[in-house]
Amino acid sequence: MELKEYFPIWDDLTAKQQKTLSDHITYRTAKKCTSVHNSTTDCTGLLLIKKGQLRAYILSDEGKEITLYRLLDRDICLFSASCIMQSIQFDIMIDAEKDTDFLLIPADLYKKIMNESAPLANYTNEIMAARFSDVMWLIEQIMWKSFDQRLAQFLLEESSLNESLILNITHETIGKHLGSPREVVTRMLRYFQNEGMIKLSRGKIEITDKQKLLEVGDHS
Amino acid sequence: MELKEYFPIWDDLTAKQQKTLSDHITYRTAKKCTSVHNSTTDCTGLLLIKKGQLRAYILSDEGKEITLYRLLDRDICLFSASCIMQSIQFDIMIDAEKDTDFLLIPADLYKKIMNESAPLANYTNEIMAARFSDVMWLIEQIMWKSFDQRLAQFLLEESSLNESLILNITHETIGKHLGSPREVVTRMLRYFQNEGMIKLSRGKIEITDKQKLLEVGDHS
Repeated sequence: MELKEYFPIWDDLTAKQQKTLSDHITYRTAKKCTSVHNSTTDCTGLLLIKKGQLRAYILSDEGKEITLYRLLDRDICLFSASCIMQSIQFDIMIDAEKDTDFLLIPADLYKKIMNESAPLANYTNEIMAARFSDVMWLIEQIMWKSFDQRLAQFLLEESSLNESLILNITHETIGKHLGSPREVVTRMLRYFQNEGMIKLSRGKIEITDKQKLLEVGDHS
Repeated sequence: MELKEYFPIWDDLTAKQQKTLSDHITYRTAKKCTSVHNSTTDCTGLLLIKKGQLRAYILSDEGKEITLYRLLDRDICLFSASCIMQSIQFDIMIDAEKDTDFLLIPADLYKKIMNESAPLANYTNEIMAARFSDVMWLIEQIMWKSFDQRLAQFLLEESSLNESLILNITHETIGKHLGSPREVVTRMLRYFQNEGMIKLSRGKIEITDKQKLLEVGDHS
């Protein structure tokens, strides 16, 4: 049973609840670089990621962005179903960063079962607490880490996610992840290049001294 | 019944659950400027505020601070019982900003009832979602608002919380709330004074042009 892999509390649901969930999931796919959820698509539902990579971010009135966290294989995306909790007073955007296969659970159905099942409600609580922890980590980074540290950490994370030392990413996109203007990103990347940590070419960044980049990222 | 006022779902708990909660709450007080919860006090329990004002904040390794949100009369403080959810991977400090009377529910007891009660688990979810919303609002402020806006908003909030146009607060304390160095606060306060919005004296700030301060705070 596939859903069981996403919900460790699956066996604590009633047979009827299990059947309702199983009967109403749908298989979906999202192409790389497309929007999966945004403020206009409202309450899409819970996304259970089979394979792929989603990026959760917020958007300012002026179109500025900052990445909150990534969702990978086996993760559950809760905020695409933010209507299940009325106290969620913010909009999170979700884009596919890679071609992504996922299961969709309709929000109203999930909410109904969560309202009657203590195990599902508590598990949902844990999912939200995990995302909350991601966001608290981000605040600490923004407030107390220098930009060179954050940029080094981001390049290393990208390299790890793509299992490659060559990153196909523009300075502008990096700026959107880190919530910084493109010029600031470019300036720091050039400094990293002068220090021999990376090599820049059009739309591409090659990590040439991973150890040194790690040291910059770890520096506190 | 007092607890009912904190838990809108009180009538959805069993008589036994209600009795267990009622039997184990204790009345506590915290003096102004004392710590109610910190990383050493671990899992204090849920605080139900009767009267007073608490400040939730985070602390960097170097002792820097930033205020996350305030808790006022009738609010429930969840993160003083963060052990009830294992996915909470961050420490929040809680100080009393005014003399505060509160009820304390032991964390283990609350967790036990939450694990078996869908209504309590869902209500706990709503409390966490509300705090999550506060923190998301803070990220937007940090990322996309200018410092003069944030300072103006803070002075107006303080004025409102204390129901006074005269604030007894140091520049250093303001810096801790906003996560900014004292010198940056002092410089902007002097600018506000030159613009006729406030009047500075030792340990005191008087708001002299609330309308103008509102305009600075609203400016986007």
